[in-house]
Amino acid sequence: MAFLQKVSPFLRSARLIPTVLLALAISCTTNHPGDEAPVPAPTATDLDRIAETIRTNGLTREGAFDFLEALYAVGPRLTGSDGAARGVDWAKKTFESLGFETWLEKILVPHWVRGEAAAEIILPGAAGRDPLAAAGLGGSIPTPPAGLTAKVIEVKSFDELEKAGSLVRGRIVFFNAPMDRALMDTFRAYGEAAQFRVRGASEAAKRGAVASIVRSPTGRLDDHPHTGIVTYEPGAPRVPAAAISTLGADLLSARLRERPDAEMMLRMTCETLPDAASANVVGQIRGTEKPEEIVLLGAHLDSWDLSAGANDDAAGCAQCLEALRLIRDSGLKPKRTIRAVLFMNEEFGGSGGRDYAAAAGRSRERHIAAMESDRGAGAPEGFLVGGGTATLEKLKAFEPLLRPSGILWIRPGGGGVDIGPLAAGGAVMMSFMPDVQRYFDYHHSALDTLDSVHPRELELGAIVMAVMAAALAEKGI
Amino acid sequence: MAFLQKVSPFLRSARLIPTVLLALAISCTTNHPGDEAPVPAPTATDLDRIAETIRTNGLTREGAFDFLEALYAVGPRLTGSDGAARGVDWAKKTFESLGFETWLEKILVPHWVRGEAAAEIILPGAAGRDPLAAAGLGGSIPTPPAGLTAKVIEVKSFDELEKAGSLVRGRIVFFNAPMDRALMDTFRAYGEAAQFRVRGASEAAKRGAVASIVRSPTGRLDDHPHTGIVTYEPGAPRVPAAAISTLGADLLSARLRERPDAEMMLRMTCETLPDAASANVVGQIRGTEKPEEIVLLGAHLDSWDLSAGANDDAAGCAQCLEALRLIRDSGLKPKRTIRAVLFMNEEFGGSGGRDYAAAAGRSRERHIAAMESDRGAGAPEGFLVGGGTATLEKLKAFEPLLRPSGILWIRPGGGGVDIGPLAAGGAVMMSFMPDVQRYFDYHHSALDTLDSVHPRELELGAIVMAVMAAALAEKGI
Repeated sequence: MAFLQKVSPFLRSARLIPTVLLALAISCTTNHPGDEAPVPAPTATDLDRIAETIRTNGLTREGAFDFLEALYAVGPRLTGSDGAARGVDWAKKTFESLGFETWLEKILVPHWVRGEAAAEIILPGAAGRDPLAAAGLGGSIPTPPAGLTAKVIEVKSFDELEKAGSLVRGRIVFFNAPMDRALMDTFRAYGEAAQFRVRGASEAAKRGAVASIVRSPTGRLDDHPHTGIVTYEPGAPRVPAAAISTLGADLLSARLRERPDAEMMLRMTCETLPDAASANVVGQIRGTEKPEEIVLLGAHLDSWDLSAGANDDAAGCAQCLEALRLIRDSGLKPKRTIRAVLFMNEEFGGSGGRDYAAAAGRSRERHIAAMESDRGAGAPEGFLVGGGTATLEKLKAFEPLLRPSGILWIRPGGGGVDIGPLAAGGAVMMSFMPDVQRYFDYHHSALDTLDSVHPRELELGAIVMAVMAAALAEKGI
Repeated sequence: MAFLQKVSPFLRSARLIPTVLLALAISCTTNHPGDEAPVPAPTATDLDRIAETIRTNGLTREGAFDFLEALYAVGPRLTGSDGAARGVDWAKKTFESLGFETWLEKILVPHWVRGEAAAEIILPGAAGRDPLAAAGLGGSIPTPPAGLTAKVIEVKSFDELEKAGSLVRGRIVFFNAPMDRALMDTFRAYGEAAQFRVRGASEAAKRGAVASIVRSPTGRLDDHPHTGIVTYEPGAPRVPAAAISTLGADLLSARLRERPDAEMMLRMTCETLPDAASANVVGQIRGTEKPEEIVLLGAHLDSWDLSAGANDDAAGCAQCLEALRLIRDSGLKPKRTIRAVLFMNEEFGGSGGRDYAAAAGRSRERHIAAMESDRGAGAPEGFLVGGGTATLEKLKAFEPLLRPSGILWIRPGGGGVDIGPLAAGGAVMMSFMPDVQRYFDYHHSALDTLDSVHPRELELGAIVMAVMAAALAEKGI
């Protein structure tokens, strides 16, 4: 891209003058002394100015990345771990240092410890062994201390597993279903591939398998295993479950084609300890007029343990914190309460979200909307929103506020692990949707590192969450 | 992001069956033997299937990245350089190896050679010197062989330069206008900052300055200078012109605040050689019914020389090649000719685009539309299109074909350095618009490397270009 022709139209167009807009936005709110008379809800024009101030401040400071960097430095935050406890401390102190009303909500969480994992391909009669990059799945039982060795049966679906019949007995089942790269919707492709990680161990065990191995659900070829939860079916036998990298899966598959008698050794020392005490961390700006009506911003503080989870979901936590700060710094005194909840235990069963919703159900508060950011730090695309057509139309009226910050659509959908339980109480479900083409490159693996997040893209997410929350807090739904 | 709740809606929805669609798409075109009777234009439904095939093939193979990798391996391709000549050879061979009708169009290009550059801050009386990461601007004259040393005057605008009056005489002018991060449109922010790179040297020289230094137009703080063209005003005195990194600019600014007597040494050994012979490289699929009507896909083969220009614009070249291949592999025999032109010399004056348009003006051919990809390899967002409302409406009718591959809007605009000269002949101008939040991190610097491009995002650009070109070739405009 050269300079000469393309840029000239920009030079002719009017310049934004952020400082003037900032001054206007502040004056439009500080003109109303809230102690003496009811604060009028900002008009559409006021909200335009507030949205502009939020965007200008956000893009100039890129403060979300500072929160991200600090939370990332805490380290991996697997539920029940010391890292998770440090994450809770950090979040509480950070909310407090920003001057927000802050508290913890105590919950219980599973406490699984990874230990060591090793996997090798063994060709009977051959001298060497091929090591495979492997990671135990969250909640897996361990292998015997010396590991287990067995022949391998490769399948690409549960149908193939079913058809294999008695061949499964005594073997390690290798689920080798790649993420379908042809699907535009990477979450759908992930969903189709990850079912083998979630359900594969029980399906294999019911047929007599001794362990379950899954190809990592990612669209890229590399040597990083992607972990995630395994769910054992109640009453079914339990076998150890691990993920191997996509390159490892290709290697194993190639070896099995040449040598169907190839064996695999799997050794995992993971263990499940008693449930541990932990907490959701809450910070809020209390509403000036209807403080009992809550607009919730949510993300999860826990992560997997192969990295410190920059995208999943330190990014979402950083956006919740930054959104709250951007709203405060816009000068808005919101009519309704805007609350950020950094949930514990999204990844290991969702007790944080469930317990939060249960407590909300017992309180006088009413959550009018809940918005989750848990799809990584990509540039904003849109919002998925639950509720009927009328709700959708009301929210689409906010599009002009959001479009200048990169929101291109508001569509039906919405919800998430953490906020989902609030739906029963009538909260409108909303999911912030960034671009997710790269997300599963990193997801649940050692690749989910700080350098995979772009400060400006992350910030834009915080900005649109702040603008949407401000609009909801003022206009209701 | 955990598995349990979020993914379930995807599992319930219908599955795509790409192979079936592929078969349908091929059958719908191969049923018409083009030699015997006029080929009916594909119906909307046919185009849907072709678009689906293009997307499925593209996302599955991610072939654009293979082209990108090969062109990147050629090295930097500054106009007139050996690298540019290797780029022309590579492009010609690549088009030929794919079986496309291929030719070169000879042009003349400037031949500027960077040589060495060094810059230092000198504090009179102090022992050491602070080195500054600097890069000469394209087309700059050299300094004297031993360099030049002068006091520095820092300005943030041409107004400030004007006001400085006689203080400019004998000094190095330091244009320190950061890219405005508060602007969502990074191209507009670039345009405002880069005017000092383009016009600064002449404006400074007219007021008696001995050299011009510009803060690199990028939104990030790092130590990489971003080069680009400097344009000397005819008749004005010429002085050496260089860019320094953003960190370097901050350092120099801080030193000048402490020590207004600080000096700077600048040494550059660049030189301008006689114009060199080079070429645009053309490949095409000839139309079956109206071969003289051309739908053009364009990008530029030349790059700056601080890297091999992965985003700017090897990515666009790779997308043009891949788009042509995807169209061919979809089975479509297009009614009109679809032509890819890899232009030479976008960065150094645009002779490739001008000469191409001049030749087109003399031929019997008619370019109905020209589409440029020169904004990096980000995920698709939309198309800017020129022409009036009627043209826009016709193109918006293609949105349903493009939306499944990530196109979210078609808006007025369009054009670019290479295709711009074709507008006079009546071609509809179109710009492929990817997400550009990261683009200026890399642009014209050593950071524009292969690893900054995501294979899937790159491919999506090729896919939407292919679908748009196929639709235009069938339906006309």
